[in-house]
Amino acid sequence: MGAPTDEELSRPPMWRFWRALPPKGKAGVFFGSWYTSPIVDRVYGSIHGSELTRSLASITRFERMLVDEGALVVKFWMHLSKKAQKQRFRELEKSPGTAWRVTDQDWERHRRYDRFREVSEHALRETSTSEAPWNVVEATDRRYRNLTVGRLLLQMLQSRLAGRHKTQVRGAPPPPPPIDARDVLEEMNLSESLSDAQYEKKLPKAQGALNALSRRKRFLEKRACVVVFEGPDAAGKGGAIRRVTAAIDARRYDVVPIAAPTEEERAQPYLWRFWRAMPKHGHFTLFDRSWYGRVLVERVEGFAAEADWMRAYREIVDFEDSLVSAGIVVVKFWLQIDKKEQLRRFRERQKTGYKRFKITPDDWRNREKWKAYERAVCDMVDRTSTSPAPWHLIEANDKKWARVKIVQTLADAIEASL
Amino acid sequence: MGAPTDEELSRPPMWRFWRALPPKGKAGVFFGSWYTSPIVDRVYGSIHGSELTRSLASITRFERMLVDEGALVVKFWMHLSKKAQKQRFRELEKSPGTAWRVTDQDWERHRRYDRFREVSEHALRETSTSEAPWNVVEATDRRYRNLTVGRLLLQMLQSRLAGRHKTQVRGAPPPPPPIDARDVLEEMNLSESLSDAQYEKKLPKAQGALNALSRRKRFLEKRACVVVFEGPDAAGKGGAIRRVTAAIDARRYDVVPIAAPTEEERAQPYLWRFWRAMPKHGHFTLFDRSWYGRVLVERVEGFAAEADWMRAYREIVDFEDSLVSAGIVVVKFWLQIDKKEQLRRFRERQKTGYKRFKITPDDWRNREKWKAYERAVCDMVDRTSTSPAPWHLIEANDKKWARVKIVQTLADAIEASL
Repeated sequence: MGAPTDEELSRPPMWRFWRALPPKGKAGVFFGSWYTSPIVDRVYGSIHGSELTRSLASITRFERMLVDEGALVVKFWMHLSKKAQKQRFRELEKSPGTAWRVTDQDWERHRRYDRFREVSEHALRETSTSEAPWNVVEATDRRYRNLTVGRLLLQMLQSRLAGRHKTQVRGAPPPPPPIDARDVLEEMNLSESLSDAQYEKKLPKAQGALNALSRRKRFLEKRACVVVFEGPDAAGKGGAIRRVTAAIDARRYDVVPIAAPTEEERAQPYLWRFWRAMPKHGHFTLFDRSWYGRVLVERVEGFAAEADWMRAYREIVDFEDSLVSAGIVVVKFWLQIDKKEQLRRFRERQKTGYKRFKITPDDWRNREKWKAYERAVCDMVDRTSTSPAPWHLIEANDKKWARVKIVQTLADAIEASL
Repeated sequence: MGAPTDEELSRPPMWRFWRALPPKGKAGVFFGSWYTSPIVDRVYGSIHGSELTRSLASITRFERMLVDEGALVVKFWMHLSKKAQKQRFRELEKSPGTAWRVTDQDWERHRRYDRFREVSEHALRETSTSEAPWNVVEATDRRYRNLTVGRLLLQMLQSRLAGRHKTQVRGAPPPPPPIDARDVLEEMNLSESLSDAQYEKKLPKAQGALNALSRRKRFLEKRACVVVFEGPDAAGKGGAIRRVTAAIDARRYDVVPIAAPTEEERAQPYLWRFWRAMPKHGHFTLFDRSWYGRVLVERVEGFAAEADWMRAYREIVDFEDSLVSAGIVVVKFWLQIDKKEQLRRFRERQKTGYKRFKITPDDWRNREKWKAYERAVCDMVDRTSTSPAPWHLIEANDKKWARVKIVQTLADAIEASL
């Protein structure tokens, strides 16, 4: 992991590590890692101690997620005394075949050895967790070092394969009883609507505002936007997405429909497929369904184990936090319709030739689980509506109302970020 | 397809288009395409007429490959007269909501309208093939334009789905009888060998040379290297790769083992998985087996239809040409062992605990097809050994000989490119 490329620089710092994660069945060797930049930044004083602490806490949660998703995370810290390091550099510099390996930066950092040691020791203490402990290896003697690394690796692989590893313990605690959760959907006034005349006036105005914001210098250089569309079948997600994209330069958005994951995606942690679609500066990614599938369909249909969807709330909040910290505006829409309106739309779809493909037996089956889905939605809103990335509940029985509110909300969110 | 990112700039020009190709079952809409840069470069005089002709010929072959791989390629050229273009720009500039769409560059290009028209007409004529014809649409009237585009698209989709499309006709012509092909492998002197003392001396020397070349400024900034390793099972590809990688900075190479393609890879043209692994400037990609699987295992085992592996020779030569033109050094090794040596190695593998995993029933089955593989290898060398990307046949009965020759050949090839 050398210097980041410009594609990497225009995305959240963790993007390049997600990009390089090994799929199931493979080993990824990271030479330079998510620890490098927090430690170096702290040594050189470009971040405060509290920022380092926050980084380390977020690393701890990232690694826990990897372990919960089935990865074995093995961390080696090769220790060399200041004296031994100097000697090693001198040795390498002597031979023309190895002299290139010692750079000015290496010597510069050598001069800060004590400070590096101090910060690194702190980092190691904070991140040596039971699920991903540090192995500190004395590296002065090459043979001892190599043998020790090999032995430790073998031992950790054996222990993991023998199943001496308990995921359940680290699962999220059971959810507290919902307090106001049920009310969230029930309190919505689904009779909100717009007349054709209001719609014809308000929609272009909101789209114009969104368009102007999307071309602002600060947005193009420092911001990006992730929009999540969730809602029951036939809630109008597709139509709303088209009203958003109509306002954005076609070269600057992607619409990502989320269906069953591909084989490559299944071989990675479940958030991997979303990371790979993250927009660079000045760009939008619109998700037609999203990572919330984990706590909606996967929960209700039992595709994910309880411990897995339970820990997802926390993982999702971490994920969205890391997007927001990197300047990505995260806007999440839940489009709500009532059961009667859904039936009306299903029947209409069956009557209209070019809409018939949209309705499948799955849609009718999901409908039978309406209550279970409502419960899952309420828990989701309760646990993942954060101030940097709140849920916006959209009354969608009237499509016109929903579309205008969505475009306006999105424009407001971007404006607030600039 | 706006301005290329630095990751895109440090790879062959077609890389970004391969990156954006839609998988089977999806439509990719390219706004800006592989035509943009040749036309613009020609208008502004940064390339000669002959270079344009070569670009257009290579585009024609690229599109034919897409069609042969199952894609429907629909090309629209929206025609606007100089007067109508001026009027359209003026109209857009009048309203603050659309004025941003007209840039200084647009006006600048408008002034060169006649030259653009001349070059574009030439490009259209040269690239309007039976498999991917141009549709020129008069774009002055928006409604006429939109309806025409929709109708043409529908018509082409219908026609393609009705099967009015003959791939076979465009397959490569049947191979001429091999002239010297069979001799290529037979003429090799497989008894070449090195003593331990020679090996201990020559290998580090060759590795040192390779290392020094890999750090040369010109290599880091303008070159990259793709190395292909092919050969029968147990020919020593893995061991040879480790001797190469030992000489290169670990941050600057990738080893890509080629086995069965993943689901995402199967949904793309067969060269796609190799394009995705292309190294950026200063980097190496080492392929343990490669795109030549198409004309080796897929041919011999009947996984690819004859028309498909036949056209692959030409497609591969085009592919490697485009890598070489972009500054990538392409080095291809065929490691040859005899049937007796293979048997000896198979037996040794079965005896050695940590090597046993390397030998599978497939290896024994492939062995029975030795003659058919030899025939395929000779055809391959005959048809794909080009002067910018020749095959290097390596006598590999003696591993020491093979490893030294490989590292030396690679160093020589990089040196010649600098």
